[in-house]
Amino acid sequence: MDQVECWGTFEAAFDAPKAGRTGNPFRDVTFAATFRLGNRTVHVPGFHDGEGIWRLRYMPDAPGTWTFRTTSSHPELDGLEGTFGCIAAGPGNHGPVRVRDKFHFGHADGTPYMPFGTTCYAWTQQPLAMQEQTLQTLAASPFNKIRMGFFPKDYEFNKNAPLHDCFQRSPDGALDFDRPNPEAFRHFDRQIERLRDLGIEADIILFHPYDRWGYADMTEDQDFAYVRYLAARISGYRNIWWSLANEYDFLINTKPMPFWDRLFQLLEEVDPARHLASIHNGDPEAAYDHRKPWVSHVCLQHWDVKRTAEWRRTWGKPLVNDEPQYEGNIWCAWGNISAEELVHRYWISLLRGGYVGHGETYVHPEDLLWWAKGGELRGKSPARIAFLRELLETHAPDGITPLGPEWPFNRISGGVSGATTFLYFGEQQPTLWASGLPKEPGDYEVTLIDTWALTEEPAEIVPAFTPHVSRHGEVVRGGTPEAAFAVKLPGRPRLALRVTRR
Amino acid sequence: MDQVECWGTFEAAFDAPKAGRTGNPFRDVTFAATFRLGNRTVHVPGFHDGEGIWRLRYMPDAPGTWTFRTTSSHPELDGLEGTFGCIAAGPGNHGPVRVRDKFHFGHADGTPYMPFGTTCYAWTQQPLAMQEQTLQTLAASPFNKIRMGFFPKDYEFNKNAPLHDCFQRSPDGALDFDRPNPEAFRHFDRQIERLRDLGIEADIILFHPYDRWGYADMTEDQDFAYVRYLAARISGYRNIWWSLANEYDFLINTKPMPFWDRLFQLLEEVDPARHLASIHNGDPEAAYDHRKPWVSHVCLQHWDVKRTAEWRRTWGKPLVNDEPQYEGNIWCAWGNISAEELVHRYWISLLRGGYVGHGETYVHPEDLLWWAKGGELRGKSPARIAFLRELLETHAPDGITPLGPEWPFNRISGGVSGATTFLYFGEQQPTLWASGLPKEPGDYEVTLIDTWALTEEPAEIVPAFTPHVSRHGEVVRGGTPEAAFAVKLPGRPRLALRVTRR
Repeated sequence: MDQVECWGTFEAAFDAPKAGRTGNPFRDVTFAATFRLGNRTVHVPGFHDGEGIWRLRYMPDAPGTWTFRTTSSHPELDGLEGTFGCIAAGPGNHGPVRVRDKFHFGHADGTPYMPFGTTCYAWTQQPLAMQEQTLQTLAASPFNKIRMGFFPKDYEFNKNAPLHDCFQRSPDGALDFDRPNPEAFRHFDRQIERLRDLGIEADIILFHPYDRWGYADMTEDQDFAYVRYLAARISGYRNIWWSLANEYDFLINTKPMPFWDRLFQLLEEVDPARHLASIHNGDPEAAYDHRKPWVSHVCLQHWDVKRTAEWRRTWGKPLVNDEPQYEGNIWCAWGNISAEELVHRYWISLLRGGYVGHGETYVHPEDLLWWAKGGELRGKSPARIAFLRELLETHAPDGITPLGPEWPFNRISGGVSGATTFLYFGEQQPTLWASGLPKEPGDYEVTLIDTWALTEEPAEIVPAFTPHVSRHGEVVRGGTPEAAFAVKLPGRPRLALRVTRR
Repeated sequence: MDQVECWGTFEAAFDAPKAGRTGNPFRDVTFAATFRLGNRTVHVPGFHDGEGIWRLRYMPDAPGTWTFRTTSSHPELDGLEGTFGCIAAGPGNHGPVRVRDKFHFGHADGTPYMPFGTTCYAWTQQPLAMQEQTLQTLAASPFNKIRMGFFPKDYEFNKNAPLHDCFQRSPDGALDFDRPNPEAFRHFDRQIERLRDLGIEADIILFHPYDRWGYADMTEDQDFAYVRYLAARISGYRNIWWSLANEYDFLINTKPMPFWDRLFQLLEEVDPARHLASIHNGDPEAAYDHRKPWVSHVCLQHWDVKRTAEWRRTWGKPLVNDEPQYEGNIWCAWGNISAEELVHRYWISLLRGGYVGHGETYVHPEDLLWWAKGGELRGKSPARIAFLRELLETHAPDGITPLGPEWPFNRISGGVSGATTFLYFGEQQPTLWASGLPKEPGDYEVTLIDTWALTEEPAEIVPAFTPHVSRHGEVVRGGTPEAAFAVKLPGRPRLALRVTRR
């Protein structure tokens, strides 16, 4: 009996030559299976992989002996049965990422997961050698999520020919949007597996507006068939997230809001693993209504990261600001902030209880920009992001809760995680600080962090002070210090504090 | 016949010993005059200056022979008449500042005025030698407006005794809020005159919450009597603005919104010069409703300066963000941004069509902080503000109109003034730029400005480029360049461009 790890991918292939010659086998032959464990049943769509081969992929989520039985409109594929054993997950396999504690994420096995994502929209459509380079770069990077499209990209700095057609071509050379090109999808599957083996979540973008091939202008029927097909192929991988669109609002003239709502619902129907699902906006003020029940987390494009705590309250879900602008120097306004500024936006976003994404857009003589093509990272932010990731994974593995509204959170950024408080001063440069520090007396370890120089050193703790603040005759804070102690600071920007009760 | 410059201050004194012995002469004797020029009449409240002396102060705004006649509840002061000649304004006298072109300011004689203000809340209550130092510092500074209270300030770093009681003391030593202390007011008048002679507008704060003397807790009747008295004394000076409160919302528990509305209306009644009037908030989201008709311009405290163009649209009036946080290093979150950050906020605010104010809060062993006490400036922002002021006064004297909403104004800051376009890149560092540049072919002078190093040099103009941007099959921008030319940039932060058609 086949054995598959829990959250691994069970796959079964079925040779059905007659079904493969039936009309358009991708559209005219239905194929699915019911998987069973004890009294539990799970409906799993299958897919035609070309040349008369049909496949089932399924991610079992509980150990035991699973069975399945197929249903199909074609007798060759109907009523087929199989069985496999699901065993405990092996090393490095923590299961899919789920929402946890309302505003955070975690793997299914309980391992914390904080998204530190990057963006390479069309890396799987670049030459194969460059794709290998991308994977090598990712392996050495701090990034544990990548935003990536299935379709290629046509845009400034992205004029090269894609590696694959996504659909087969008719005899006249035109793309037939009703016939997926299995070679393109197989390659995509394989790269998701490669990412999985690196421990990287693949945040799959289903649609985007930057297109010269017609992928953005298929009919609604074709759109839904494509998503059904892709979901049947990849929902069996534990490391995928659904991103329904990049900049959905720039497609809204032909794909109106009910389309996107329906697409979320469709994914609920066809993805038995119920992977995370969200959708990305173009205009900063045109975010999708992430309160809708089918949205697992907020995906956002917005530069004004000090609003993170506000957005968190607005939508009540984990927030991933995937595009706070990119480190780079291109002419596009969203792609030319300094590394210092991107690192600044990371600290602000994380300490206000959100998550944030990386992208890199440095001018290159051959238009090899990481943000769309992958390849090499050239910027200065990844080393600082790695530092921040390690810091948070060590000291705040369950995620940050922003300091309360009574605290001046619009200026300094700060949050707590268990017994640890983080403060980030950014463009502020106080020489003495108390707001947001613990109020309970105790033995605290206070570490001064230079977020750019990447140094950590013990901070100088000094006695609490009583602010002399009065308002029309009454002392506002009752004449008592607002914190159990104060901290001396060097009075320069880009510093942070980590405070932990020993 | 006395002669007074247009927008100068005509003053007449009346010795009325019997009136001076009438009950509380500050409250129990009414005194005003009607000033006439031709058929025009202006009602001008007068004031008791102590010791049986009453005065009238009036700022004539048109040349000619003016007459006046007093009215009073006391016969000694009733029906007195006089005359004076108003002559043309002398050098340096441009008249009061008025709103111009909806979003901007100008002097009454047509001279442009762009507010470049600073803040010294209680400078007139410091030791006299320090006040002289403040005036010397101001004379050498780029600042042409100062926010200043009449009352002293009780706050962190502001614990010293004030120079004057604002009201007289009763025999038991308590302040009698019904009897102004003429010495305190005379000193205040004199310092307004000193500012006037330096060409500096005095933005007078009437109330504030930081008080240990009871000035913030007078009765409404006393509040209004105080404002009537102050207005009678100083509305005859051309260089005053009314700021009804510093952080009015922190007084709202005892002075509710109708109080502030009524106070604006009272000023309309008692200020014949109708000086500019606004009110300053504490909580960034608690700005007064500046659309109310008695508000001449928006006074704001808000750190998120990229919203300037939005605020402008919200209120439809000139916008002065008087507190975008201060350069300094104190523990208070509003008082410790770096000089670089304050200069950054200046450029953003100005190029988005608003105005912005300075303050300085560096820790000092004797608590001599410019923001409240004046004295010396120690920061690095004033030199950069001076540079920016000269640049705008030279190239944009009528003020900046922000680039339109079709332009990515949420990222880069930019605006136009006549034939000149300014772009400020701030934290962005493109190496090539075209958005927001002129669309008409022509001969342009393009200057690259380093806003921190304070250098100007010719920028390298390069041919316009056609962005390769397509969305679902259609080229968005019609395949034509969005600007007549492009500019190469050095790819580092804090740069700006000035573009003028020759």
